[in-house]
Amino acid sequence: MEDKDFIQEAYKEALKSYSLGEVPVGAVVVLDGEIIGRGHNRRITQNNPLLHAEIVAIQEACQNIGNWRLDGATIYITNEPCLMCAGAILHSRIKKVVFASLNQKMGAVVSNYKVFDNQKSPYKVEYVYLPDERCGGILTDFFKGKRKGD
Amino acid sequence: MEDKDFIQEAYKEALKSYSLGEVPVGAVVVLDGEIIGRGHNRRITQNNPLLHAEIVAIQEACQNIGNWRLDGATIYITNEPCLMCAGAILHSRIKKVVFASLNQKMGAVVSNYKVFDNQKSPYKVEYVYLPDERCGGILTDFFKGKRKGD
Repeated sequence: MEDKDFIQEAYKEALKSYSLGEVPVGAVVVLDGEIIGRGHNRRITQNNPLLHAEIVAIQEACQNIGNWRLDGATIYITNEPCLMCAGAILHSRIKKVVFASLNQKMGAVVSNYKVFDNQKSPYKVEYVYLPDERCGGILTDFFKGKRKGD
Repeated sequence: MEDKDFIQEAYKEALKSYSLGEVPVGAVVVLDGEIIGRGHNRRITQNNPLLHAEIVAIQEACQNIGNWRLDGATIYITNEPCLMCAGAILHSRIKKVVFASLNQKMGAVVSNYKVFDNQKSPYKVEYVYLPDERCGGILTDFFKGKRKGD
């Protein structure tokens, strides 16, 4: 599978959030070509402001491999991660981040912050912005619906 | 109870991490003068790189009050929060952060980043650095022990 296929898997997760009425973001963690963690945003459903897609996926991946270090893993996300999730990615020792849409207000990779470019950080994380119209589109649709009171 | 008393409660949590061989950091979340969440770092014990003291305390607080918003709450932490935890504090709508020692390498409030000073952030968080020698001291002791191979 290629990067775009894993983004498609992350998009499937985002659709689950959409169905729940949650901000539609999805993520998958991949190690050696296999998905070891999946997550979709469910912070309202579970009364937990920290349950962004990335947090759920990282925690599942760690439980699956029985290790708190995800050395060599890549996380695919439908949207640019926020500060909390970028920090979580650093702590989990994930090697690479691929994200498919930008988050102008809260994005911590290239938008509001550039945390993976910080020279003081003890861990290096590669990142790739791989635009996918559906991943940004579902967010636009969601917020349009919210404004209309859907 | 005053700020220093709640820092003492956070310190008790840090001692629990120390006993587990984990980086000794503790936190408590306080709302209307009552502790509604407690946490100590246990990322290695639970194979979960995200279980910093703050994350555990915030999640417990949200479960306790049945709400993902901790409007009006204060979090007391023995050490300056990292990027992930500062992000988590923003997402949980905590009003104020009191921390008792600095984290030169990873601190996200006044050291490596100043995220609560970011003008683009949609949420405002007050912060107070209230030095407490024991809170920094237990971290120094822990890392000294590590270097000696204790």
